[in-house]
Amino acid sequence: MENNRKIRVGITHGDINGIGYEVILKVFADGTMTELCTPIVYGSPKVAAYHRKVMDISANFSIINEANAAMDGRLNVLSCTDDELKVELTKATTEAGKAALDALERALQDYRDGLIDVLVTAPINKHTIQSENFKFPGHTEYIEERVGEDQKALMILLKNDFRVALATGHIPVRDIAKTITKELLVEKLTIFHRSLKQDFGIDCPRIAVFSLNPHAGDHGVIGSEETEVIIPAIQEMMAKGVQCFGPYPADGFMGSGNAFHFDGILAMYHDQGLAPFKALAMDEGVNFTAGLPIVRTSPAHGTAYDIAGQGVASESSFRQAIYTAIDVFRNRQIEKEISFRPLRKLYHDKRDDSDMLKLDQE
Amino acid sequence: MENNRKIRVGITHGDINGIGYEVILKVFADGTMTELCTPIVYGSPKVAAYHRKVMDISANFSIINEANAAMDGRLNVLSCTDDELKVELTKATTEAGKAALDALERALQDYRDGLIDVLVTAPINKHTIQSENFKFPGHTEYIEERVGEDQKALMILLKNDFRVALATGHIPVRDIAKTITKELLVEKLTIFHRSLKQDFGIDCPRIAVFSLNPHAGDHGVIGSEETEVIIPAIQEMMAKGVQCFGPYPADGFMGSGNAFHFDGILAMYHDQGLAPFKALAMDEGVNFTAGLPIVRTSPAHGTAYDIAGQGVASESSFRQAIYTAIDVFRNRQIEKEISFRPLRKLYHDKRDDSDMLKLDQE
Repeated sequence: MENNRKIRVGITHGDINGIGYEVILKVFADGTMTELCTPIVYGSPKVAAYHRKVMDISANFSIINEANAAMDGRLNVLSCTDDELKVELTKATTEAGKAALDALERALQDYRDGLIDVLVTAPINKHTIQSENFKFPGHTEYIEERVGEDQKALMILLKNDFRVALATGHIPVRDIAKTITKELLVEKLTIFHRSLKQDFGIDCPRIAVFSLNPHAGDHGVIGSEETEVIIPAIQEMMAKGVQCFGPYPADGFMGSGNAFHFDGILAMYHDQGLAPFKALAMDEGVNFTAGLPIVRTSPAHGTAYDIAGQGVASESSFRQAIYTAIDVFRNRQIEKEISFRPLRKLYHDKRDDSDMLKLDQE
Repeated sequence: MENNRKIRVGITHGDINGIGYEVILKVFADGTMTELCTPIVYGSPKVAAYHRKVMDISANFSIINEANAAMDGRLNVLSCTDDELKVELTKATTEAGKAALDALERALQDYRDGLIDVLVTAPINKHTIQSENFKFPGHTEYIEERVGEDQKALMILLKNDFRVALATGHIPVRDIAKTITKELLVEKLTIFHRSLKQDFGIDCPRIAVFSLNPHAGDHGVIGSEETEVIIPAIQEMMAKGVQCFGPYPADGFMGSGNAFHFDGILAMYHDQGLAPFKALAMDEGVNFTAGLPIVRTSPAHGTAYDIAGQGVASESSFRQAIYTAIDVFRNRQIEKEISFRPLRKLYHDKRDDSDMLKLDQE
């Protein structure tokens, strides 16, 4: 990236029958966001115009045909799917699924070509998008496969300092217990730890680990995975100097306010982490795919067909998704700079207490 | 029950090394609660006095040796375990486990003998209580077995109108999927529906049912139990005139505020229901065992060893547990009265809109 170029944020339009365009347009309805970054929406200018008109959102955009044509200070919409496609608000259609995939593929191609810096994805319908080119349970797995460069992805949901990562993701409940191995947990904890340092600038992150079974298995009365799998994984990480604690029963932990004493929480499976996360932080929740070279975020909500086209969707989560992508990208740049020029490290210390110290001396 | 006798609330002291006595004593530190009911704590007067002294709680109590000696307007502590037992605050000891079980057994005996009307249980340590006479994962299963009269229990967590019931309870995660059958769900939904009517006085309750798998299985992409088990169960209930909806993915549902549009939520397993419930409602959460002849409640928290003896535990949840037990007992009395004297039904209509109508007419 040229030093003075604005961060280029690639945004895929997701499902055109949901609230994707609504939240995108609302976020860029005023000029604040384009001061921070240059957005490129991968989608359809016609569909964008349709949503804008239906909900009377006062957002302007420029139509482009390639990322290089994107202009700073503007919302750029890159045409990359059939422009004659039919919007059927609130409906799950295969046409919308195809349009969602077209946008994703073009965005990833442009990412590979260095035309965008980070990726923010509007929600897709995980059913209609399935096709020859998309046989994945969700964005995360697809992106891991396509641009992961053999790295493993870790799904993190976050709102400010409340970060919940998932040891397992889009798998059936019947497969959870057998999927969770010590190796998997060590892998996920290693990625999580690295991400908390590199992506969020936390020097020595503290991670809370949830138990798999109710009441952390109650010493074997309700399952044995805690003693056989989770505790050994925690011990291995601690031996490596990574601060991991637990396993904590998810319900008591979430009820106790304990979450705010840790930099991150590793939940064992989807609903265990996401149900309490969304109960507390839906509005501004962000989904971040850690562990991959690409920086990818998305809002915590889905297509929300039930309110599509009504103009009542909140854009807060999508706005935070863009902020998070930019923050993570910058944190990684800082870290790179530090490691390239180690002598200058002092001047880039992420936990610089000098201001505080100076105040003390006065 | 004699008509003018106060409701007798049996309270088991739970684990003597946790916060049980602290919350009991705090609830009865002023006289408000004894105006509503006559409490009988099954436990140890010596241990009660110890906790009172350590935390300097200004609650007085009367020592009794049998429930018949309980006095109205007083906190009665019934001695029913070895009075020389050692309190080791914050520690899990077998001595405490035994004392917890002694109290439970005596309370259930007195319940059978008609000496108490409802049961409120302080938290136990589910590990130390295990013994020849207690081979259960928790209170719920033990009470179901001992005084359930062959009825099936349903665990409901509630705070005001936010009620979450569990289709499965204290079982390992690896057993969840195979435990959930259509028959089980129909059974749980039937109990839940009946409890919402009989115990909470809701005429035509609406129940939301969670999906088992993430994203409700996404049409089979992530598991098939939704289409094979859950939806057929919902359809069967609807055919019987019970208002059941879903299956809803737990995370999106909890994040959307949808919970407040239903009278009850059936979660498929422990953490799915309890993690978001406690995230939102820990402070005043109450655990109610529905489906059994006995009315039994408990606070939503556990023994909380980490803060035992410090005097910082909140008694709100325990207070609500007592209120709930009294409410449910009274609602059942009203329902019984209605069915015994059907001609008087009009005068007991639980959803009497007459006041509202009168206001309209004025």
